[in-house]
Amino acid sequence: MKQFLIILLVFPFFTNAQNEDSIYIRKIADEIMVNGQAYNNLHYLTKKIGGRLTASPQTYKAEAWGHAIMKASGADTVFEQECTVKHWVRGGQDKATILSIDEKKIHRPLSVAALGNTIGSGGKAVKAEILSVQSYDELDARKDEVKGKIVFYNFPFNDKYIQPGNAYGEAGKYRYAGASKAAKYGAVACIVRSLSQAVDNFPHTGAMGYNDSFPKIPAIAIGLRDADSLFGICKHNKHVQVSIITNGRFLSDTIAHNIIAELKGTEHPEEIITVGGHLDSWDMAEGAHDDGAGVVHTIEVLRVLKKLGYRPKHTIRFVLFANEENGLRGGKMYAQKAKENHEKHLFALESDEGGFTPRGFSFTTDKEKFDKLKTWSPLFEPYFGSQFTVGGGGADIGSLRENSSVTLASFTPDGQRYFDYHHAKSDIFENVNKRELHLGAVNIAALIYLVDKYGL
Amino acid sequence: MKQFLIILLVFPFFTNAQNEDSIYIRKIADEIMVNGQAYNNLHYLTKKIGGRLTASPQTYKAEAWGHAIMKASGADTVFEQECTVKHWVRGGQDKATILSIDEKKIHRPLSVAALGNTIGSGGKAVKAEILSVQSYDELDARKDEVKGKIVFYNFPFNDKYIQPGNAYGEAGKYRYAGASKAAKYGAVACIVRSLSQAVDNFPHTGAMGYNDSFPKIPAIAIGLRDADSLFGICKHNKHVQVSIITNGRFLSDTIAHNIIAELKGTEHPEEIITVGGHLDSWDMAEGAHDDGAGVVHTIEVLRVLKKLGYRPKHTIRFVLFANEENGLRGGKMYAQKAKENHEKHLFALESDEGGFTPRGFSFTTDKEKFDKLKTWSPLFEPYFGSQFTVGGGGADIGSLRENSSVTLASFTPDGQRYFDYHHAKSDIFENVNKRELHLGAVNIAALIYLVDKYGL
Repeated sequence: MKQFLIILLVFPFFTNAQNEDSIYIRKIADEIMVNGQAYNNLHYLTKKIGGRLTASPQTYKAEAWGHAIMKASGADTVFEQECTVKHWVRGGQDKATILSIDEKKIHRPLSVAALGNTIGSGGKAVKAEILSVQSYDELDARKDEVKGKIVFYNFPFNDKYIQPGNAYGEAGKYRYAGASKAAKYGAVACIVRSLSQAVDNFPHTGAMGYNDSFPKIPAIAIGLRDADSLFGICKHNKHVQVSIITNGRFLSDTIAHNIIAELKGTEHPEEIITVGGHLDSWDMAEGAHDDGAGVVHTIEVLRVLKKLGYRPKHTIRFVLFANEENGLRGGKMYAQKAKENHEKHLFALESDEGGFTPRGFSFTTDKEKFDKLKTWSPLFEPYFGSQFTVGGGGADIGSLRENSSVTLASFTPDGQRYFDYHHAKSDIFENVNKRELHLGAVNIAALIYLVDKYGL
Repeated sequence: MKQFLIILLVFPFFTNAQNEDSIYIRKIADEIMVNGQAYNNLHYLTKKIGGRLTASPQTYKAEAWGHAIMKASGADTVFEQECTVKHWVRGGQDKATILSIDEKKIHRPLSVAALGNTIGSGGKAVKAEILSVQSYDELDARKDEVKGKIVFYNFPFNDKYIQPGNAYGEAGKYRYAGASKAAKYGAVACIVRSLSQAVDNFPHTGAMGYNDSFPKIPAIAIGLRDADSLFGICKHNKHVQVSIITNGRFLSDTIAHNIIAELKGTEHPEEIITVGGHLDSWDMAEGAHDDGAGVVHTIEVLRVLKKLGYRPKHTIRFVLFANEENGLRGGKMYAQKAKENHEKHLFALESDEGGFTPRGFSFTTDKEKFDKLKTWSPLFEPYFGSQFTVGGGGADIGSLRENSSVTLASFTPDGQRYFDYHHAKSDIFENVNKRELHLGAVNIAALIYLVDKYGL
């Protein structure tokens, strides 16, 4: 490309107040785009600390780091909320290998990750034939064939969904509940096609859970290319034998912490605005997009407000939540404490959809408040965050709304690449773009500023 | 992330005609997102053919491939337009090395690429002291210091521009004209800070041109980390000596071709709609985003319209332009032939801003037509291409408007990552995301469909 034409946004017509806000948001953007620390902070979190599975040594390193950096960023106070967490460990190298196809012996290892919370295979390999199905309906129809087999769920993402999150929503039940559904009919293990649309073959882990009515069996995910291949092999051959080794187990319950920084409100200190992401991640990668991005967004909003000398009317909380991935104990504790302390929560925003280029925000609130929020949307156009939709929130902040009318919000960056990396080895710092990450922080800071200034 | 809430777009209220269009565009999207060939085609173009500097052997391989694949995709006809092109070759390994800092000898190679069209250093190294400046103003002010020196322009991208294209527009003059500006004052070579915001150190090449009034001197770009470092060294030391070797030269003029596929119009065959990208690229990488993406977008629009059995009212041309990067002869020839043949051009769209996730389109047209185009924008919301702005076009299609009122359009994907890869070694297939690329094709095909159906 030789010439690049300057693209003129068609700016909306602003009122005086909006002009003032537009100028302040421009200051926020200038500070973050030029001096932003989110990218450097993410580098530290991912490269110096690394994967942060709940109760791993990295959990506590990340907590200490988060505490220190929010204090250094100018928080009035930083405090911790202790919560009891389950302590699952992967426990060793997960393995799965195709041993034979019909009468022919082979040895073909698959790209595999045990699902979070799965049991181990008992120190030995589970060896059995595969029953390959594409849905629970097919499993039910073929229930008589299940006994003694390894059930392989090959339910692909529907590429027609323009929002990959919708495909994830549809396919997610096989990962979360597939093992017990299969065990109900006598399966000895369970393989799930990774919840992704990536062109690579990395397996994607993620939480699963057992239904206590049925035997617990090992559950793993395999990479998409291996899933395509295994599905094809099973389609064209009667007997496909696979061995699976998992080593997962629960150690004793332990503790983790929400790390909470506050800027005290000057006019309504009792009314709370929350912005947060979750500090834990899966163990196989660095948790860069999920949810390192949300963590450093949160810290950057604090940094920029302090840097610009902003004095909030309401109390703003910057929360690094514990244990989102496999327990949600941090989010639940935050809501429990809010209830115990009779806190008044006005607004809570979570950034947990990655550090990609902004699209906007999504809200769960009443119509009146949504209409008010929508009037601010033009202010976000220059920063690409103006798509305001309904339905948003976040796993960690969801419990807050059980007992209150708090408005929930999620930051919604572009979602096309999210599931390429989600819970996989590829969720690393190198797959986060600095400008995209910082633009996210610009939009989140702008929204927090507006909510604080005008209330909801 | 454990739960992913389904995000509901707030759909606009459609008229009946818009409902019909919405359904047809959904068909386009389904076909491309599920069966799209753009990504596979890009793989072939980048990995089997590779970098396609004008008049290189790859140029003609790419032409033959483009011709064959557009024929196979169902074009009524495919024809070629010959144009004479200058034939610049890099000619060997570009080198630049810091030789000494004040009295201290060192040997520190820099990450370097000769700028396109530059001369060679004459089979030997140019060795001279650096004069480091940040602007033409500074160069002018220090003109008495220039003689016998290598001028180093260290003009960084302005991070405050939310659209990196604006930063590129501002910094571009140092690459294009810096050599002659320096030679005017007696410089012996010229180094330019790469036109990028990347966090890596790859040098970014790109076209430069000489002013024939002044001696021609070698011109190179260096990577951003090296630029930061060299600038710092020059700031803190008086004498910094560097050697530069370039090998660029022009061979005899030769020929290249625009490759043009047509779907003949059923109602207004004499009125032409053009969609295109450029087939050439720089030599150092694979030209994946610049402009392999535009090439495969173009071919995909043809493929999907044929696949859906669409019979256009107007004649639609699918053009793979020659020689955009260092001559623009393909685009000029296309406009010249249009004039010679008294063709009536209604609309011309270029995709040359990469294969990133869509934002929208930008148009150069009159107010009435822009207002008409804007009424279609809600149809693009589900596919993220609804941001319709003014000012767009493209290098290859620009000449078409010199003699006509043709509406020019550019596809405008998200621009945050574009200059990370632009003209650098990193512009490779692996840095293109399949879904983002295909979503671009969806939006372009939808716009071509609407322009054809309703005219302009």
